[in-house]
Amino acid sequence: MEFTLEQIARLVDGIVIGNPQEKVYTIAKIQEGHRGAICFLANPKYEPYLYQTKATAVIVNKDFQPQRPVSTNLIAVEDAYTALSKILEEYQKIIFRPKLGVEEPSFIHHSAQVGENCYIGAFAYIGENVQIGKGVKIYPHVYIGDSCIIGDNTVIYAGVKIYQGCKIGKNCVLHSGVVIGSDGFGFAPQPDGSYKPVPQIGGVIIEDDVSIGANTTVDRATLGNTILKKGVKLDNLIMIAHNVEVGEHTVIASQTGVSGSTKIGAYCVIGGQVGFAGHITVADKTSIAGKSGVMGDINESGQQLMGVPVMPLKEHLRALAVFKRLSEVWKRLERLEKKLFSSGID
Amino acid sequence: MEFTLEQIARLVDGIVIGNPQEKVYTIAKIQEGHRGAICFLANPKYEPYLYQTKATAVIVNKDFQPQRPVSTNLIAVEDAYTALSKILEEYQKIIFRPKLGVEEPSFIHHSAQVGENCYIGAFAYIGENVQIGKGVKIYPHVYIGDSCIIGDNTVIYAGVKIYQGCKIGKNCVLHSGVVIGSDGFGFAPQPDGSYKPVPQIGGVIIEDDVSIGANTTVDRATLGNTILKKGVKLDNLIMIAHNVEVGEHTVIASQTGVSGSTKIGAYCVIGGQVGFAGHITVADKTSIAGKSGVMGDINESGQQLMGVPVMPLKEHLRALAVFKRLSEVWKRLERLEKKLFSSGID
Amino acid sequence: MEFTLEQIARLVDGIVIGNPQEKVYTIAKIQEGHRGAICFLANPKYEPYLYQTKATAVIVNKDFQPQRPVSTNLIAVEDAYTALSKILEEYQKIIFRPKLGVEEPSFIHHSAQVGENCYIGAFAYIGENVQIGKGVKIYPHVYIGDSCIIGDNTVIYAGVKIYQGCKIGKNCVLHSGVVIGSDGFGFAPQPDGSYKPVPQIGGVIIEDDVSIGANTTVDRATLGNTILKKGVKLDNLIMIAHNVEVGEHTVIASQTGVSGSTKIGAYCVIGGQVGFAGHITVADKTSIAGKSGVMGDINESGQQLMGVPVMPLKEHLRALAVFKRLSEVWKRLERLEKKLFSSGID
Repeated sequence: MEFTLEQIARLVDGIVIGNPQEKVYTIAKIQEGHRGAICFLANPKYEPYLYQTKATAVIVNKDFQPQRPVSTNLIAVEDAYTALSKILEEYQKIIFRPKLGVEEPSFIHHSAQVGENCYIGAFAYIGENVQIGKGVKIYPHVYIGDSCIIGDNTVIYAGVKIYQGCKIGKNCVLHSGVVIGSDGFGFAPQPDGSYKPVPQIGGVIIEDDVSIGANTTVDRATLGNTILKKGVKLDNLIMIAHNVEVGEHTVIASQTGVSGSTKIGAYCVIGGQVGFAGHITVADKTSIAGKSGVMGDINESGQQLMGVPVMPLKEHLRALAVFKRLSEVWKRLERLEKKLFSSGID
Repeated sequence: MEFTLEQIARLVDGIVIGNPQEKVYTIAKIQEGHRGAICFLANPKYEPYLYQTKATAVIVNKDFQPQRPVSTNLIAVEDAYTALSKILEEYQKIIFRPKLGVEEPSFIHHSAQVGENCYIGAFAYIGENVQIGKGVKIYPHVYIGDSCIIGDNTVIYAGVKIYQGCKIGKNCVLHSGVVIGSDGFGFAPQPDGSYKPVPQIGGVIIEDDVSIGANTTVDRATLGNTILKKGVKLDNLIMIAHNVEVGEHTVIASQTGVSGSTKIGAYCVIGGQVGFAGHITVADKTSIAGKSGVMGDINESGQQLMGVPVMPLKEHLRALAVFKRLSEVWKRLERLEKKLFSSGID
Repeated sequence: MEFTLEQIARLVDGIVIGNPQEKVYTIAKIQEGHRGAICFLANPKYEPYLYQTKATAVIVNKDFQPQRPVSTNLIAVEDAYTALSKILEEYQKIIFRPKLGVEEPSFIHHSAQVGENCYIGAFAYIGENVQIGKGVKIYPHVYIGDSCIIGDNTVIYAGVKIYQGCKIGKNCVLHSGVVIGSDGFGFAPQPDGSYKPVPQIGGVIIEDDVSIGANTTVDRATLGNTILKKGVKLDNLIMIAHNVEVGEHTVIASQTGVSGSTKIGAYCVIGGQVGFAGHITVADKTSIAGKSGVMGDINESGQQLMGVPVMPLKEHLRALAVFKRLSEVWKRLERLEKKLFSSGID
């Protein structure tokens, strides 16, 4: 299927700089652009490719100023990455046929309610009293424990496991290997050094528009609920412990772990492999660099933090600059001491 | 269902301070306490809630001394967290109906032995010559490879995968996504720079009372066995490599990794996101802070360690305090040098 | 079954030092050697066991020089670890009967093609237009999405999930819980602070001889492909983000994460719990210590790196040596200042 640049510009609310009648039939990365492909430039790191690409057109931000002559057509938009997202959405609708209906064998408890236009893949398991909304896609090997509630248009990919009694909102996406509602890690130490498991009878509430990456785990609460608020985006292999709350539209990159009862604010941006201690509070709009460790409350919102334990980003970078030269610091210290304490002054 | 405080005190071996005839019908977090709820106070961080809670009663440690007047009833016990555990256990017995029987379709090899009072969920797979004890719960989508042995009353949640020949003890809990017995990461480097896989023909032995969190992996040994001893508690997303041994009643928090052939002692407490090098030994009762890296043997038992590589906790905290001020150290060093080497002394 | 040392020496192209007619019937770790067992010594850390082992024979490297008298037979080979690998392979062929045929119930779409001599376990799901080569082993609960291609002799263990359109080469091994082709973590920030998902329409290409450990995730590309080249070996719980490329015969230890669009070179050796930033390039033959953080391009090949962010290994170790003594540095600095600025010189 082919589209003119004019048609695409209309879709993404952009302006064609070049020939609006040229046609494209596919989408490509800018470094792999070719005749008939439309590309996009969002990350400035890839700008050099713009001047050599063979793509028919490149989508750029309105405020982008080329530093050199450009031979390809441009489509200027408010935000190139969002425009790409729109085009890919349309492309996806054409390419991928949505799954529908129930494949056999599957296990759907007679008391479960399933809405219209759902897909239930083979070997999926829907427990007692489960309620599933409209347009939900449940891929093969998904397990939905008793009394769970799944909101409209949520997509649950192959092999997701949801323990009994959890609530998932509308328009959520749960990727393969996600585990929701496993027991929180609660054990009471006993006098003989062994541990007694503390039953975890709370639940998990996942609000609307939440996306959860492959093999991420969200434990159920001891009491009350573990909560992921509206619009939260979690990457792969993340650990959300019992009674944690993650605020609206907070984004967390892969392999980060949040310990029990910690509350992360709204609109935070958390890097990968970050660790949060338990029972702490992190203010809204906090930004935390990858590999950091958050040991205590972050009370002031809007900070950029880094390190183990976290410090303001700039301070941490300054400390790191000296860290790299610590063996030099040591030598200079010795030189000073030699001078000062052996020169007769002492 | 309602219980008097007197009944609860009897269950947890505690003393009511207040009105033993008052009734509760549910359990809540202290910050969400309400009329009819019983709460508990174990972590001192939550003490302020005690003075404002609307809960009917709060369970506290015997040695707890309120700093301000308390308007709720108290139940004083040896250990509040253990008491909570007991109450939750009773609550769970009332609320959750245990699963029993075999759901279809499931795959149980004709040579497999299954004890009395088991649950085998739909789509579970039980291989050749598998032996399953009494009262075992095997949830849907569990895979138990040939010749595995599962001890009495063990619970294996949905989607756990156990490769052939592994032994799981009694009263264990394996959460969804756990993988037991996958190949150890053993590859012999070849002269051309490629790697030849070393077959992993050993096994995994998991002793009694072990709990393993969601998506944790325990690799099989090259030769011999990877061993988790009695009472070990592993959180989610942990990596236990081939030929590792974890000693009795050691607790490990999420996302920690233990490299091949390392032996961790008994009664250790390991934080989250810790990394252990391979072929090392860690003494009993070692405590290691989250995000630490253990590069060599820990010979002395009972130490508190932190850092990458680990140092005694207090030393590490002192070093960190200076690390935060390294840019100041640098400036002060320069000031000294300026003074000393440009003042005519040199 | 028993073998003479002569037979074993012939298999591993080695020389018997001792009695070639002695017989062994099993393989054991050197610390657990006993009469009738053959052991191996590759890691010098285990050399002390050589002088006390009760094993019938030990395989050693040709260039190994015992420091004390040895009472067991030796088999000297080019590389002891590779020799072990060969023996284990033979042992495995004798011990493990390979799985073959199709177990029921399974779901194989009528349009799927399955080669000769395959195993398809119960509850496996093979989607539309999937192509599966010869001798492939697909264990129970595996999900293979529509239009995937799986090369000859690849082994896919229980519960692996492969999303639609991914390509897996020949002789690959995918361990339980692996997820291939889940959506890349791409979200375009919107003016109101929420995020719009960017559809991920690219794929994943896994070349021949790749091994992937349990619960590792490999996301599909936004556009183009995420690529693991020939011979790559990934350990457990690793995160490979969208559009990443990992070069031939690179080995990565567990819990490491590689962010989007990063290119790792060939023949690299990456430790565990390492984090890579996105959109960077790492040169061939780079060696990176566990727990490191790679924030920018590594242009020079063959380096040994360590730290967060990475530095040359030796420099980092020198800096660490001073880090451990930072509180001493601080005191010495104060002593110098006291001397210099209060002694009347200032």
